[in-house]
Amino acid sequence: MQTCYFPNLIVRAIDAAQPFDLEAKSYEHFEKSTRLKIGIVGFGNFGQFLAKTLLKQGHTVLAYSRSDYSDVARELGVSFFPDPNDLCEEHPEVILLCSSIVSTKAVLQSIPFQRLKRSTLFVDVLSVKEFPRDLFLKVLPPEFDILCTHPMFGPESGRDGWQGLNFVYEKVRIGIEESRINRCDRFLNIFAQEGCNMKEMSCGEHDRHAAESQFITHVMGRTLEKFGVESTPINTKGYESLLDLVSNTSGDSFELFYGLFIYNKNSLEQLERLDMAFESVKKLLFGKTHNVVREQLFPKE
Amino acid sequence: MQTCYFPNLIVRAIDAAQPFDLEAKSYEHFEKSTRLKIGIVGFGNFGQFLAKTLLKQGHTVLAYSRSDYSDVARELGVSFFPDPNDLCEEHPEVILLCSSIVSTKAVLQSIPFQRLKRSTLFVDVLSVKEFPRDLFLKVLPPEFDILCTHPMFGPESGRDGWQGLNFVYEKVRIGIEESRINRCDRFLNIFAQEGCNMKEMSCGEHDRHAAESQFITHVMGRTLEKFGVESTPINTKGYESLLDLVSNTSGDSFELFYGLFIYNKNSLEQLERLDMAFESVKKLLFGKTHNVVREQLFPKE
Repeated sequence: MQTCYFPNLIVRAIDAAQPFDLEAKSYEHFEKSTRLKIGIVGFGNFGQFLAKTLLKQGHTVLAYSRSDYSDVARELGVSFFPDPNDLCEEHPEVILLCSSIVSTKAVLQSIPFQRLKRSTLFVDVLSVKEFPRDLFLKVLPPEFDILCTHPMFGPESGRDGWQGLNFVYEKVRIGIEESRINRCDRFLNIFAQEGCNMKEMSCGEHDRHAAESQFITHVMGRTLEKFGVESTPINTKGYESLLDLVSNTSGDSFELFYGLFIYNKNSLEQLERLDMAFESVKKLLFGKTHNVVREQLFPKE
Repeated sequence: MQTCYFPNLIVRAIDAAQPFDLEAKSYEHFEKSTRLKIGIVGFGNFGQFLAKTLLKQGHTVLAYSRSDYSDVARELGVSFFPDPNDLCEEHPEVILLCSSIVSTKAVLQSIPFQRLKRSTLFVDVLSVKEFPRDLFLKVLPPEFDILCTHPMFGPESGRDGWQGLNFVYEKVRIGIEESRINRCDRFLNIFAQEGCNMKEMSCGEHDRHAAESQFITHVMGRTLEKFGVESTPINTKGYESLLDLVSNTSGDSFELFYGLFIYNKNSLEQLERLDMAFESVKKLLFGKTHNVVREQLFPKE
């Protein structure tokens, strides 16, 4: 660009810059109003996985875990507190429980609730939902808000982003004040913004569906893993989907698998149904074989 | 195009057209030399499926079946013979056996071999391979050539073309004359031309791999079908692969499934292995539950 000089013109005010500055300020205000201070309790695999996206979106993330994750927290940009009292004294607006299913009760009971603001929002991300809902309602002081959620993906399936992946939630107990309603929505918006399919659903309905689908998927995946499926030189398309299944479930811990079984009251019935289905397929094969042999032994005239 | 008249110019020879004509003739000769006259014996679902591609490639297709498929044959452009004697008297170069596994023996024995040329190539496309190999070697006159194949796809998985799909074969008995070697290669080329992965493999090796992969895929697909898996509002990626599996295997007949079981000597062992894998997964879940209850009853000090 060419610069022109008008020696008679003197700049007397910088008002031209003002609207730009106002815009920046208003944007900053907006940003602040959507940002949350989130305390993650339980900072294992899944907690760290969620933290990355929370940080990317500009939220402040604190973490406490019974194991020492201070190194990984430092690398991510998360403040790590070895003492839950210190985390709670930071007054996070949200406590995000990221423990495994089987350790949830012990972890929850280790939180000094009295050091938190009475309006804190408690959120869980477990793969079962009735169990944490009942536990929260029983253990948490009545002033605390409760949101039960299940992001139906993990570090493996959500590696390339969360677009199109299911996020189930129930607003179990959210105070009627606008600020509380707004805070819960801001938290949910973290997942909506990443493109998740947001599914509002009761914890009971979730558990019924999940026992039929997610638990049975894990049973199949683990059975095939024990069987030892391996790529052959002559895979069919159907067999490729078995191999996919194993790679999809084999990364998860036995603890998660057991949690899906014992903390979801619907799982046992579904396992029994699968057992019966497998038995009936075997019976079809052996029954037909039996008939063939009998027809050879006792031919009809 | 504009036509010009030059009244003084008289065409005295058509030599200008000759090279073109020669080219056409040589192409015709080439086409003829790659085209085969193929008699399909057993003209059900799979025979019709293969016939479409054979016809597309310019081969002549004849068919015989115990059921009357004359209407569907006419629509496709296949000559249908209700009497196998008539089909054989047409002297097809290749007899392509497309019966189901369980009816193969009866269908083969119904063919009047004496009406065929003694050099005929017999091909099967069954999903088991040792059984038809042994049957062909035992039943067919020794002059006939034998090629055992398994196109590892069907009307469902091969609907959008055969590109990248596996085609397994063993040249069980091909005469040493160049014409016989050439004919076998021309037949195999039908599948190579469509983009199949051509896998030369002994019938025994095929059956070992197939029992581990294809048969187990069918067992899983049928078990899930009996279980009644259905799309839920909260499918995970793993569960989607279970649904894919069912849609991939549910179209196949029980007859095929039973054939994979009883005509492949490796299948029973693989079924037993899968059974043990499933039992051990259940034992893990119930064993852990048992331990949890015992620890509550008899706590360690």
